[in-house]
Amino acid sequence: MPSEFDLIRRHFSRPPRHTDLAVGDDAALLSPRAGMQLAVSTDMLVSGTHFFPDTDPEDLGWKTLAVNVSDLAAMGAEPRWAFLALALPAADDAWIAAFARGLFACAEAFGVDLAGGDTTRGPLNLSVTIIGEVPAGKAITRAGARAGDELWISGQPGLAALGLAALRGEVALDAAGHARCVDALQRPLPRVELGLQLRSLATAMLDVSDGLLGDLAHILERSGVGAIVEVNALPLCALRATGADAATARRCLLSGGDDYELLFTAPVGARPALRELSTRLGLPLHRIGQITGQTGDCLLRESDGMLAPASASGYDHFA
Amino acid sequence: MPSEFDLIRRHFSRPPRHTDLAVGDDAALLSPRAGMQLAVSTDMLVSGTHFFPDTDPEDLGWKTLAVNVSDLAAMGAEPRWAFLALALPAADDAWIAAFARGLFACAEAFGVDLAGGDTTRGPLNLSVTIIGEVPAGKAITRAGARAGDELWISGQPGLAALGLAALRGEVALDAAGHARCVDALQRPLPRVELGLQLRSLATAMLDVSDGLLGDLAHILERSGVGAIVEVNALPLCALRATGADAATARRCLLSGGDDYELLFTAPVGARPALRELSTRLGLPLHRIGQITGQTGDCLLRESDGMLAPASASGYDHFA
Repeated sequence: MPSEFDLIRRHFSRPPRHTDLAVGDDAALLSPRAGMQLAVSTDMLVSGTHFFPDTDPEDLGWKTLAVNVSDLAAMGAEPRWAFLALALPAADDAWIAAFARGLFACAEAFGVDLAGGDTTRGPLNLSVTIIGEVPAGKAITRAGARAGDELWISGQPGLAALGLAALRGEVALDAAGHARCVDALQRPLPRVELGLQLRSLATAMLDVSDGLLGDLAHILERSGVGAIVEVNALPLCALRATGADAATARRCLLSGGDDYELLFTAPVGARPALRELSTRLGLPLHRIGQITGQTGDCLLRESDGMLAPASASGYDHFA
Repeated sequence: MPSEFDLIRRHFSRPPRHTDLAVGDDAALLSPRAGMQLAVSTDMLVSGTHFFPDTDPEDLGWKTLAVNVSDLAAMGAEPRWAFLALALPAADDAWIAAFARGLFACAEAFGVDLAGGDTTRGPLNLSVTIIGEVPAGKAITRAGARAGDELWISGQPGLAALGLAALRGEVALDAAGHARCVDALQRPLPRVELGLQLRSLATAMLDVSDGLLGDLAHILERSGVGAIVEVNALPLCALRATGADAATARRCLLSGGDDYELLFTAPVGARPALRELSTRLGLPLHRIGQITGQTGDCLLRESDGMLAPASASGYDHFA
């Protein structure tokens, strides 16, 4: 069996592009650019909780880094350096090689150096810390939403949750829909460029990892505001087009997670700039509601005009 | 059972001292000081591999952070920000409270902000990423040792390995010795101040986590040099004073790990400054050998003057 050091060398030591000293010493050394604030995020993925034990390791490598990249996108930060701590039940060379391929594919797609990490024996556990840069004072937090702002979401939320339901056999999709949804689940595309462009437009932002309504509640809480979500404005058509029934599509869109779309608020005056940005990036941006002054209060306006409280709840790992 | 968010809030949200935005958003925000390079290290601790499952959680909290602080000390960097990813089999409030107490005790002792993290359900796993600062170009890596340099080690290496052997019932120590060794194992003291002071004196440095000879091999490999370790110069007396026999004491000193003492090389001319530093810090610094030009070659000079190859091997988690 190859040693820990061999494994690290063989699979995780690719030449860094903007790291002064990477894998192989007590610590990595890196030099942030002048005038930059650092954004740092950590995510831990556990087998059985965050992914199926038999998930394709190349997909898993992609997703492990992608969910961290997404956290920085949600701050308007540019991802730069990642650190991987990896517990493995055995030194399975083929598994590690595939995992590393997926991880580096994501790293290269988003300009991230794998600058360091740790490998150990233990139940499968993937922990990434990512460091990005944002011009000082320009990060978009969850706390800046104001009454009167509008609520927007990028891309197509709900696909990943449909993919998960399909893999669990809880919903039957047509073949093309199944493939699209499972791909959204396994290979999420963090919205980095959108996040950077939103620095000058959004007032609050986060990435939807635990479900639209659950994550919206974080913005409302941190900003001290409320929201009305317009059911008619939700992008349900693409979900229905996968073969999902209306109730499942709605549930996946509002309460599913794992799509890593950006949910953000912006003043009404930002509409033209956001439409232009959407066209430029080739990425739909949906205006799905308004921010209100009712602290913490989240309402859904149904198609018939009736307002009902959104029974918002994110995915709580200890619930 | 309290929710994930409640747990995080209750135990891990202490006011940061030098973090712009800590726990509670997609990423933490921090501002390195001008002219600083960042040193970043990640360590993952797994139950059963790195600590006994019944380890006192307060000790474990201390050690989880301390081993990361030590990595920065070994670069001559000042620890500033830590990020904790934590997988727990259950939301055990008392366990988490004690763990957090130990972690924050270490954070406060070394001026570290807990700036972010992640909590999830899973087999017990503790992953910390730590970020520190070092004036640009002043970090001490493993690669700077030169033939003619001398080899030094701080404090009392071997105590932690004796403590581990004692807990396993492999060695009987006297009561005071037992307490001292177990304390060294459970509550290692990272040599941060020493690391900072060695910036202008040491040519290569690391912290001894996997055993003196095994870790020395990393310096030799990265620096392209060899070493002779003088057995007569090894600080064995304090280990014998715990009640350990000579062979066990020697084995623990040369091949035991987990003490987090600093092993470093320095030119002969640094001796007076190192002695003065040792006095000032109240910390023994032992000159235990020389660096040679024989790449990768590590020899032990026994008491009788004979040279023998050191069968060096660190603790390899996959061996």
